[in-house]
Amino acid sequence: MLRLLTKSAISAPKRSINWNQGVLRLSSTFTIPKTQKGVIFYESNGPLHYKDIPVPVPKPNEILINVKYSGVCHTDLHAWQGDWPLPTKLPLVGGHEGAGVVVAKGSEVKNFEIGDLAGIKWLNGSCMSCELCETGHESNCEQADLSGYTHDGSFQQYATADAVQAARIPKGTNLAEVAPVLCAGITVYKALKDANLKAGQWVAISGAAGGLGSLAVQYAKAMGYRVLGIDGGKGKEELFNSLGGEVFIDFTKYKDSKEMINAIKEATKGGPQGVINVSVSEAAISMSTEYVRPTGTVVLVGLPAHSYVKSEIFSHVVKSINIKGSYVGNRADTREALDFFSRGLIKSPIKIVGLSELPSVYDLMKSGKILGRYVVDTSK
Amino acid sequence: MLRLLTKSAISAPKRSINWNQGVLRLSSTFTIPKTQKGVIFYESNGPLHYKDIPVPVPKPNEILINVKYSGVCHTDLHAWQGDWPLPTKLPLVGGHEGAGVVVAKGSEVKNFEIGDLAGIKWLNGSCMSCELCETGHESNCEQADLSGYTHDGSFQQYATADAVQAARIPKGTNLAEVAPVLCAGITVYKALKDANLKAGQWVAISGAAGGLGSLAVQYAKAMGYRVLGIDGGKGKEELFNSLGGEVFIDFTKYKDSKEMINAIKEATKGGPQGVINVSVSEAAISMSTEYVRPTGTVVLVGLPAHSYVKSEIFSHVVKSINIKGSYVGNRADTREALDFFSRGLIKSPIKIVGLSELPSVYDLMKSGKILGRYVVDTSK
Amino acid sequence: MLRLLTKSAISAPKRSINWNQGVLRLSSTFTIPKTQKGVIFYESNGPLHYKDIPVPVPKPNEILINVKYSGVCHTDLHAWQGDWPLPTKLPLVGGHEGAGVVVAKGSEVKNFEIGDLAGIKWLNGSCMSCELCETGHESNCEQADLSGYTHDGSFQQYATADAVQAARIPKGTNLAEVAPVLCAGITVYKALKDANLKAGQWVAISGAAGGLGSLAVQYAKAMGYRVLGIDGGKGKEELFNSLGGEVFIDFTKYKDSKEMINAIKEATKGGPQGVINVSVSEAAISMSTEYVRPTGTVVLVGLPAHSYVKSEIFSHVVKSINIKGSYVGNRADTREALDFFSRGLIKSPIKIVGLSELPSVYDLMKSGKILGRYVVDTSK
Amino acid sequence: MLRLLTKSAISAPKRSINWNQGVLRLSSTFTIPKTQKGVIFYESNGPLHYKDIPVPVPKPNEILINVKYSGVCHTDLHAWQGDWPLPTKLPLVGGHEGAGVVVAKGSEVKNFEIGDLAGIKWLNGSCMSCELCETGHESNCEQADLSGYTHDGSFQQYATADAVQAARIPKGTNLAEVAPVLCAGITVYKALKDANLKAGQWVAISGAAGGLGSLAVQYAKAMGYRVLGIDGGKGKEELFNSLGGEVFIDFTKYKDSKEMINAIKEATKGGPQGVINVSVSEAAISMSTEYVRPTGTVVLVGLPAHSYVKSEIFSHVVKSINIKGSYVGNRADTREALDFFSRGLIKSPIKIVGLSELPSVYDLMKSGKILGRYVVDTSK
Repeated sequence: MLRLLTKSAISAPKRSINWNQGVLRLSSTFTIPKTQKGVIFYESNGPLHYKDIPVPVPKPNEILINVKYSGVCHTDLHAWQGDWPLPTKLPLVGGHEGAGVVVAKGSEVKNFEIGDLAGIKWLNGSCMSCELCETGHESNCEQADLSGYTHDGSFQQYATADAVQAARIPKGTNLAEVAPVLCAGITVYKALKDANLKAGQWVAISGAAGGLGSLAVQYAKAMGYRVLGIDGGKGKEELFNSLGGEVFIDFTKYKDSKEMINAIKEATKGGPQGVINVSVSEAAISMSTEYVRPTGTVVLVGLPAHSYVKSEIFSHVVKSINIKGSYVGNRADTREALDFFSRGLIKSPIKIVGLSELPSVYDLMKSGKILGRYVVDTSK
Repeated sequence: MLRLLTKSAISAPKRSINWNQGVLRLSSTFTIPKTQKGVIFYESNGPLHYKDIPVPVPKPNEILINVKYSGVCHTDLHAWQGDWPLPTKLPLVGGHEGAGVVVAKGSEVKNFEIGDLAGIKWLNGSCMSCELCETGHESNCEQADLSGYTHDGSFQQYATADAVQAARIPKGTNLAEVAPVLCAGITVYKALKDANLKAGQWVAISGAAGGLGSLAVQYAKAMGYRVLGIDGGKGKEELFNSLGGEVFIDFTKYKDSKEMINAIKEATKGGPQGVINVSVSEAAISMSTEYVRPTGTVVLVGLPAHSYVKSEIFSHVVKSINIKGSYVGNRADTREALDFFSRGLIKSPIKIVGLSELPSVYDLMKSGKILGRYVVDTSK
Repeated sequence: MLRLLTKSAISAPKRSINWNQGVLRLSSTFTIPKTQKGVIFYESNGPLHYKDIPVPVPKPNEILINVKYSGVCHTDLHAWQGDWPLPTKLPLVGGHEGAGVVVAKGSEVKNFEIGDLAGIKWLNGSCMSCELCETGHESNCEQADLSGYTHDGSFQQYATADAVQAARIPKGTNLAEVAPVLCAGITVYKALKDANLKAGQWVAISGAAGGLGSLAVQYAKAMGYRVLGIDGGKGKEELFNSLGGEVFIDFTKYKDSKEMINAIKEATKGGPQGVINVSVSEAAISMSTEYVRPTGTVVLVGLPAHSYVKSEIFSHVVKSINIKGSYVGNRADTREALDFFSRGLIKSPIKIVGLSELPSVYDLMKSGKILGRYVVDTSK
Repeated sequence: MLRLLTKSAISAPKRSINWNQGVLRLSSTFTIPKTQKGVIFYESNGPLHYKDIPVPVPKPNEILINVKYSGVCHTDLHAWQGDWPLPTKLPLVGGHEGAGVVVAKGSEVKNFEIGDLAGIKWLNGSCMSCELCETGHESNCEQADLSGYTHDGSFQQYATADAVQAARIPKGTNLAEVAPVLCAGITVYKALKDANLKAGQWVAISGAAGGLGSLAVQYAKAMGYRVLGIDGGKGKEELFNSLGGEVFIDFTKYKDSKEMINAIKEATKGGPQGVINVSVSEAAISMSTEYVRPTGTVVLVGLPAHSYVKSEIFSHVVKSINIKGSYVGNRADTREALDFFSRGLIKSPIKIVGLSELPSVYDLMKSGKILGRYVVDTSK
């Protein structure tokens, strides 16, 4: 019924009246249009259309967010190209790092008020009642609903989001800067938690100067860890140091992996207790099983396609190391990651372009020319 | 609107038609009456009426359960008497250990099908988005909605329940026997988890032969712990032994607490690593801080009114003990506690009477004459 | 000085007098000979001599154990063959599953009395003051001293052992049966702890019917887990069931790994939460990363030479699994593993032969014909 | 034998020769006198003698430390007054915060070289083989040997210490400033670990401006926590802020405990997740059970005599809080606490006086006039 009611509401001029009589609560403060601008595609790798599309209507458990800014993540590129094992919905509006304002909410929504700031993140919803959901592993739920993948995402001006999963963003937050935190920030923060370290211990960030890496360094620092960064190329060490890193390993400066492993072990007096692999180099990932400290944890975050982590069994056992996969964060991780950002401990360097320019951002990504994090302004 | 729609539906003869068109899904298998039998009271400690009351209508996120059996818990007595710090809704249908069949569900319910077995438990719902809910402490949520307390409970033939929180009961389960597991079982299972023990360690159950205690002994045994039971009076030791207990301490046999503490320490070679206080004796609870093993955990479960646990600070520090409050279980605890029951590891001795006899069960409770767990059959 | 004193003591007839005046305490109950029978070799893979060798003298922190029985482990074969990355001492008396009686102790030993039962285990001693030792990972200590490897072991009638690390065996224990628990038992018990499971969860034992596997099944059962066993061949399922296993997967009955993986997932409703790889099949180990439940833990125990565990990164991340190496247990693991044995929960099927027959046991091992655990009687 | 040898060595002029032939290793770098200055007393509360006493000789497992500086702790006052439940050795040299140089070591000592810096801390030694020692709770060992209590401590120029337990102090450390870290620092660091917090959570320090409190604030900050401090009186807030504290609660400014509890809850949006009670006010300690956040942990550290922590049971259960006793740290805690100090994250404000002035420091302590931490220079 809601769907029937909603459909007619959308096509009818009296829609807002119907909404008020129904399961939705709308504020008098906001005027919600019937159509909006968004980027949509109808087939994998097909044309990206920046065009007028209908404003979606929230279900009883959803909020409607007027998205102001959205980060652009490599996952969005994969969603469009359709090259991951998991199929997307089609047609699809991508995007899963959206920050905006709540303008409408379903009848069962208790945790948001109209006018609150809210964020769209990768996990839009989950069953909340399987063994994984019950124990805080919602992201691993078999029925996970993914923003910009199986649920229309944040590359539009108005998007719906499951109220329980949507991020609550504190008033006064810079919506453009917070956007990348909603996926990249949460992901690295969760990975650091998964490394199960104590304050004062060493963590290595493999790929420390990239988008995820830069955030990881700052979170690690804020959590009281000592940070060793691994990356290569000009200007990387300066960036790393400016973010609070302590020891930088430039992989271009070692003649072989053995020498580099020794350098890492020496700098950390036995190897870092944790390693966060945001790099997608298969070799770098497997190498981390060699320099991690005995009983330490290698965390896998980056997603190279068709790749394997390999670990020599004798050494794996005698050193008693762990290799742990870390996916995106849950509701608690989201709140905590945002809290560090709100306290000013995390800087998120971004470049803002109009939503209409999204296709050219994808082009840059594909050619590997992207520097830093792009954020689209949905009003342009 | 749902509520408006629902209200009219209840008063109108065409109700079922409206339902089918709306947010609810009803099975053709079940006929849902407009009224039902239930026990309701209109003021705290006021008369308990066994009478016809309307069948409630589930919200989009709720299921409607045809309750077959419901356990009767001391909390139900408190809810009726209104002697706890927290006010109840009024009028109120009590009961929070209900087992039955799903006969209708709201539009957003994904985890139940019509015909599934389901259970009503103390926590009917929570905000799912505060810090406590996000970390699996839903029971501690400030907005917790409690069955038979702030939400009409299981002392009626048809009750609504939040689908995410409702217990999923495996097909083929004996609904009368499982009823007490839905509160008493989950509570002691959670308390045992909170004691943070390893298989092979000792746990003391203070109040081992009572309703909660009997279940605690069995869960402890199934979890691989060694069980010391404390209780007093005839037949208690035999009951305890039959449930798998290993050492019984009859408190009536010691001349003073010091002697009893020594006996407990000796039997467990240094004191139990964990203590579960289901007893509501203030003295027994404080005594448990003395016999618990150094670095061990005293868990508080029983709720004596206006009482304090007292622990001598010097000894508390030097022994590094922990006193932990354990409330009711969350969704995961519920699933796990039911799983032990389904596997036949937990026996739940019950006495079945008709729902109409509830007032006399309360009389027995008030006079302290109750033996074992009463379960009401809602059809009588 | 102790060593000087000791040397002369051994060659002089007044030795026992010197000992009593010195750092050692000797019981009047035991007569300690100057020489004894033992199996010794002087070069890797060289002849194994069953001959008279000197009785060693304990250092201030050591006990002298009159070894009655010793288990024979595959590691002993590797120690003799010298085919592991870590060099052994030479000449060497092997053996690290020795059970016997304390007959002398150094001046600083506080935790053993003459006449106590004691066990020799793989880890003879460690620095006790590195980061790993301090946090209970003594086995991973860089300075670990290993019985039957870098310290003369239990294939002799009298062996020294670090008192802090030596196992305390309760009075009345069957010394022949307990011998294999001192390495095999502790190892699988530790691996089960490393899987970080809760009672009621599923654990798969890959190699369930072998020596380590049989013990693992029993420990898992005693810890409250549900056990799925994987093995192949005649009589394996019957053995598994008799030990308390719940579901047996005979790998010879599946046409491919995919079919077998599905069978495991189905039997455990989603895959076991933990997997213990005691099998040394590289393929079986990597396969376990595929059937383990999301967020579950694959534990590596078996030590195939020059082998790698491989895990597909995308799936490792999205399922958030963990691959954990588990080495031998620490002092606490030892005490706990022995306690389960003492309580009669673990049966250790053994075949007893004389110490002089050790070379033929190695022959059986090399040809893969060994069935069950061999234990040598040092008196023969 | 060691003891016989040692005794004669002390009385004989050829002592150093005997030592070299025996179980001790002495450096040629250091000349060890036969007597030294120390403060000793022969009966509880009896005269404190600053006089010549023999230099002790280390046992095989001990080091001999040339103590340069020693902190003075309230526990030293209790040890002298003999007013704690546990009896001291007599005569006694007190002190358990000693920092100095290793000048000799027993034959079994592997983790110290002559010339290393070493620290004497409260726990001098433990059995290392009971259940508590095995699991890192050495401080709770029944056979714990305590510096300046059951073992002569650091109020002398040369003191022996168990090598495994003695603190390893990095080269270049300021020995006067590090002294108070060896007890006060480790204690509050351990308490913070016991609070089981995550970076970004709130911890309240009750007694934030005192000796322990000042260190606790700095450790908490370094561990990534947000710090609320509670104390009263002039200059306390400024001190707290200078140490990195975020919110200060001056208890002198609230009309009653209710108002203060509300202020704490409001500042931390629901109460701190952890509370460290270094204050010895019984009322303040019990009050912390009221303002701690649901599911949070109240840590007891301060040791008021004959006092009790009281917690209302209903609220304790419904809020599911913990009250945890935290004693002194273990070896790992020691290393970690020192590491934070070495990295310059902890400032330890001290006042240095000569060892001979110790009695007047006790006088100041008894009259409650002490400000900051006193450290004695053993050379004066």
